[in-house]
Amino acid sequence: MVTEDEAMRRAIALAARGLGTTSPNPVVGCILLDADGEIVGEGFHAYAGGPHAEIVALAQAGQRARGGTAVVTLEPCNHTGRTGPCSQALIGAGVRRVVIAVDDPTPVAAGGAVTLRAAGIHVETGIRRQEASQGNIAWLTAVRRGRPYVTWKFAATLDGRAAAADGTSQWITSQPARTDVHALRATVDAIVAGVGTVIADDPHLTVRDLRDGSLAIKQPLRVVVDSHGRTPENARVNDAAAPTWVVTNQEVGDGPDGRVDLNALLTALHGRGIRSVLLEGGPTLAGAFLAAGLVDQVVGYVAPKLLGAGKTALLDAGVATIGDAIELDLTDIAQIGPDLRFTATLRDKTLEG
Amino acid sequence: MVTEDEAMRRAIALAARGLGTTSPNPVVGCILLDADGEIVGEGFHAYAGGPHAEIVALAQAGQRARGGTAVVTLEPCNHTGRTGPCSQALIGAGVRRVVIAVDDPTPVAAGGAVTLRAAGIHVETGIRRQEASQGNIAWLTAVRRGRPYVTWKFAATLDGRAAAADGTSQWITSQPARTDVHALRATVDAIVAGVGTVIADDPHLTVRDLRDGSLAIKQPLRVVVDSHGRTPENARVNDAAAPTWVVTNQEVGDGPDGRVDLNALLTALHGRGIRSVLLEGGPTLAGAFLAAGLVDQVVGYVAPKLLGAGKTALLDAGVATIGDAIELDLTDIAQIGPDLRFTATLRDKTLEG
Repeated sequence: MVTEDEAMRRAIALAARGLGTTSPNPVVGCILLDADGEIVGEGFHAYAGGPHAEIVALAQAGQRARGGTAVVTLEPCNHTGRTGPCSQALIGAGVRRVVIAVDDPTPVAAGGAVTLRAAGIHVETGIRRQEASQGNIAWLTAVRRGRPYVTWKFAATLDGRAAAADGTSQWITSQPARTDVHALRATVDAIVAGVGTVIADDPHLTVRDLRDGSLAIKQPLRVVVDSHGRTPENARVNDAAAPTWVVTNQEVGDGPDGRVDLNALLTALHGRGIRSVLLEGGPTLAGAFLAAGLVDQVVGYVAPKLLGAGKTALLDAGVATIGDAIELDLTDIAQIGPDLRFTATLRDKTLEG
Repeated sequence: MVTEDEAMRRAIALAARGLGTTSPNPVVGCILLDADGEIVGEGFHAYAGGPHAEIVALAQAGQRARGGTAVVTLEPCNHTGRTGPCSQALIGAGVRRVVIAVDDPTPVAAGGAVTLRAAGIHVETGIRRQEASQGNIAWLTAVRRGRPYVTWKFAATLDGRAAAADGTSQWITSQPARTDVHALRATVDAIVAGVGTVIADDPHLTVRDLRDGSLAIKQPLRVVVDSHGRTPENARVNDAAAPTWVVTNQEVGDGPDGRVDLNALLTALHGRGIRSVLLEGGPTLAGAFLAAGLVDQVVGYVAPKLLGAGKTALLDAGVATIGDAIELDLTDIAQIGPDLRFTATLRDKTLEG
């Protein structure tokens, strides 16, 4: 027997397995408990167009769902999209109780709880809401802001250098840290880099197994921010390993700095179904995103090394004086091999007054 | 009853209370156990010229030391300096057994263990040696290298900036971090800063209680590295709060970069009885110390902020390419208020192949 709280924790963990493959849909996990509180079905939403978490769990449970409880990370949908409404499926299966972490904020899919209640099902919401919201942060942010959730990733020495004086940067961080970056890439819909980085480092920007170089089945869209179309034809980002979009001013318009309009870029990515973006540099592009207030999260890999010269991790983020520093809330610090990984969210200054 | 191992741990903690006030002597802690293993005396060396740890503990124990065990972090001295030899005092008190963490490496004071053994006392060495060596690292390094142990302290943002674009840097780190810096200063014999920092920030470089501004009784020597004697007469470092030495090329000679010869400076400080130095910047002086291989430890206070412009924490450390990066071994990471404190030692490349 598991408690509903434990079941929700499990549902949140299940949901996370969908990260990187469900967009434009959210990640969702569902646990079905029978009348005795035994787990009789588990499911998560694995890819857009595929069955929703509730449907997977109901199929597994079969008749054992009757009289039981559905524990689900997001309010069951109420509309017929690529699949039928989950609320009807739960009613049809004879579920007696539905426990929800997060209400669906989208007008088209919302209303599942109302439908369930109208059918006499007991509905409870808000169980582990914060944790479940965090697990769906990219999708929820995209709903709220109409643009993808942006994570800026950098790798630097303890003194903030992303390359040495002669431009060499391979490798500032360790293999475990680089492997971790590939795991991070696997959770997003797009990887964004500036043309300067593409020309200087010729990165591949794919999700690979670094032991044998094999590519993951699902690859994020590679996006090169390239105001004037300078990306070399034979750059690695132009190979067949993953889709690539080289974005020019001509295509999305001029930003205030004369380069690609980043707001327009993110809107365009959102239009393509992209809900999460990993911004991988270089320092100037990262500065432009930060200056425009378009970064939601920072993941920094810091190597215990000093360089004292060379390219800094960040340039021109629109901060002139110490009082205007961009403030972060550290959410996690982890040791990855010899390196440290900082995860932080941008403090929302508009909330402070 | 305590074990000898527990007693040594306690002796090491006691020894640390002397940090910042014993130079040119080491820090030493001593626990006396009676024949039943009960603590009957405790002592630490508090200041040069004052009684040694063993003498303090023996005075406390009196007759109860007879037949007991002395647990001491450093081999008891065998010479008559400003005080008599501790080996004779232990023999005279009738101690039956002496447990030592670290052998005394100095020719003049060593030989205590031999004298004790010759008197029929059972001597054991090496108990918690590494921990006790770490506690005495400044003094041991000074013995080995003929120069003080140098800790470089910096404060920076997560992207390695020590000031904003307009030069403002007060305050990058939080009050708890700044309080921690004062605690760090209290453990050293001298604080070193470059004239550029003195002119730009006019730091006081004293040990203070930040709540009320009151000065600690013992103040480290303030050292301004000032090749051409540019320190303003009315600079805060020139006030009466602590002794100050403004070091010019004329006084200690030219280094290879035409500025103050840092090796000669450290030798001169050693000659003044200084065993530990806190290097507080700026970035150019830190780079010169690092390039000369004269930094033993790094303590970095990193604020969860981004600046993207402004002075970097470190400049010109003699590293041109990534393979020559200065590698550190992190020994501690602590959260100090909202900030992080990294403590690391310089990896000795000569030890690696």
